[in-house]
Amino acid sequence: MTSKKTARVKKEPPVILITNDDGITAPGIRSLVEAAKDLGKIVVVAPDKPQSGMGHAITIGHPLRLIPYHGFDGIEAWQCTGTPVDCVKLAVDKILHRKPDICLSGINHGANHSINVIYSGTMSAAVEAAIESIPSIGFSLLDYSIEADFAGAIEYARKITALMLKTRLDKHTILNVNIPKGDKNLIKGMKICRQAYAKYEEDFLERTDPHGRKYFWLTGEFKNMDKGKDTDVWALEHNFVSIVPVQFDLTNYVLMDKLKKTWKS
Amino acid sequence: MTSKKTARVKKEPPVILITNDDGITAPGIRSLVEAAKDLGKIVVVAPDKPQSGMGHAITIGHPLRLIPYHGFDGIEAWQCTGTPVDCVKLAVDKILHRKPDICLSGINHGANHSINVIYSGTMSAAVEAAIESIPSIGFSLLDYSIEADFAGAIEYARKITALMLKTRLDKHTILNVNIPKGDKNLIKGMKICRQAYAKYEEDFLERTDPHGRKYFWLTGEFKNMDKGKDTDVWALEHNFVSIVPVQFDLTNYVLMDKLKKTWKS
Repeated sequence: MTSKKTARVKKEPPVILITNDDGITAPGIRSLVEAAKDLGKIVVVAPDKPQSGMGHAITIGHPLRLIPYHGFDGIEAWQCTGTPVDCVKLAVDKILHRKPDICLSGINHGANHSINVIYSGTMSAAVEAAIESIPSIGFSLLDYSIEADFAGAIEYARKITALMLKTRLDKHTILNVNIPKGDKNLIKGMKICRQAYAKYEEDFLERTDPHGRKYFWLTGEFKNMDKGKDTDVWALEHNFVSIVPVQFDLTNYVLMDKLKKTWKS
Repeated sequence: MTSKKTARVKKEPPVILITNDDGITAPGIRSLVEAAKDLGKIVVVAPDKPQSGMGHAITIGHPLRLIPYHGFDGIEAWQCTGTPVDCVKLAVDKILHRKPDICLSGINHGANHSINVIYSGTMSAAVEAAIESIPSIGFSLLDYSIEADFAGAIEYARKITALMLKTRLDKHTILNVNIPKGDKNLIKGMKICRQAYAKYEEDFLERTDPHGRKYFWLTGEFKNMDKGKDTDVWALEHNFVSIVPVQFDLTNYVLMDKLKKTWKS
C-alpha cells in the first residue's frame, strides 16, 4: 500500500514546453529556460531562424523538419524549420506525444503589448497552445537589443509561471506578459490589464533598386490612442509588468446581439 | 447655389479595397470583384502567390514590391509580393493614399469558420483593415475546388456588402462570412452567429527523404467540440450563410476581473 506521503513524493514534475519566435539561438529563450528550469521538466521546440511578425502563420505548402539542438545543457531541445505555431503543433504530436502541462513562449526581444499581440509569433505560439487545451504564457521584454538585460524578465517569468502552475485556471488560459526595460529593481510589481488600443501608423519607406524598380520597407510610428489607465501600455509606461489574459474566441458579442436584431436574412 | 438633388448626384461612390489570400489570379477574388463592382469604385491589391494559412503575418525582414496587374477589365489592380496583411497596409499608404470606405477579402476557396479565423490570411486582411479604422468583410466559400461554383457566394457577398455600406456600423467592424457549398437555391438565408469552438486535430504525416532524413506534412481532422446552435458551424451545416462579427481586442475580460481579485503583485 502506498502512503499518501509516498504518492506525493512520486508525483511527476509538470512538463513545460518552451518555444519562441526569435529562434532557438536567441538570448531570450535561454533566459526563459533559466527562469523555468526548477519548475518542471523542460522540453524546448523552437524555430531554427527568426520568425518575428509571423502571427498565427502555419506551414501548409511544404514539409517541416525537426533537428536536435544541443545548446541547452541537459535539456531536450529541437529546432524546427517552421513557424512558432508549427513548433507547438509538432511538439505535441511528434515529440512529447502528450499535452505538456504548460507552454511558455519567449522571452521575446521587444514589446508585444496592445495590438502587437496579433502580429506576434511569440503570442501566436501561446494562443495555439491554448487552442489545444494547454495553458500558456507569452513573455516579452521591452528591449530589442541582442544584449538586453533579462534579469527582471527572468524573475517575473519564474514568479508568474509558478503562480500559473499552482492556480487552477481554465485549460484555455493565455497570458500576455510584458516586462519593462532596464534595472529590475525599478520594476514596481505586476498589473492585470486589458489590451490597449495602440498601434503602429504605417509609413512605408520607398527605394529604387539598381534596375530602376521601386520597393518598399515596412516602417511605422507607435501611437497610443487609448487614454485608459487599465491598459498594458499604461502599466508598462509606469514601470509595471503587464499581464493581459487573452482569448481566441474573436466573436464581437455586442455587435452580434445588435445585428441579430437589425439584419434580417 | 447647388441644389440638394445635384449634390446627391455628385456624391462620390464608395472606394472598395479588395484583397484575398489565395492570390490575385484565384477565381475567388474575380467573383468578389464581380459581386462588388456595381457598389463603388473598386481597387484590387492582392498577393502575387497563394498565402493561405499566413494568419496575421507581416513582412519585416525583406522589402515588398507592387506590380500592376491587368487581369480585371477596367479596374485598377496591383499584385503584391507580401502577405494579405501587407497588401492592406500598402494599399492604404502607397496606392489609395486614403482609407477606403470598406475592405473586402476573399472569396476564399475553403472554410474560414470557427477557429480557422485565426489561421486565415483572408480574415487577417479584414482584421488589419479594421485595426486601421476601415470596416471590413471576409468572405469564404466552403469549397476548395478551383472550379467551385461561386454563384451563391457572389449573391450573398453583394447583398452583405450593400447592407454594410448602408448601415452605419463602427469603423472597426469586421464580419466573417462563410457560404455553404453547392446549389445557391438550397441556401436558406443568413444567420448572425458566434465563432464555434471547433478545430483541427493535428496528425502530422511522417515521411523519409532520399537522404534518410525525416520530414513532416501538416494534416488534420476537423472536429466540432461545440454543441451550440448559435455557432457558425451549426449555421453552415444547416445550409445558412454564417456571419460572425469579429473583434481584435483579444482581452479575456472575465479572466481579467478574476485575476485582478486573486493575483497580487
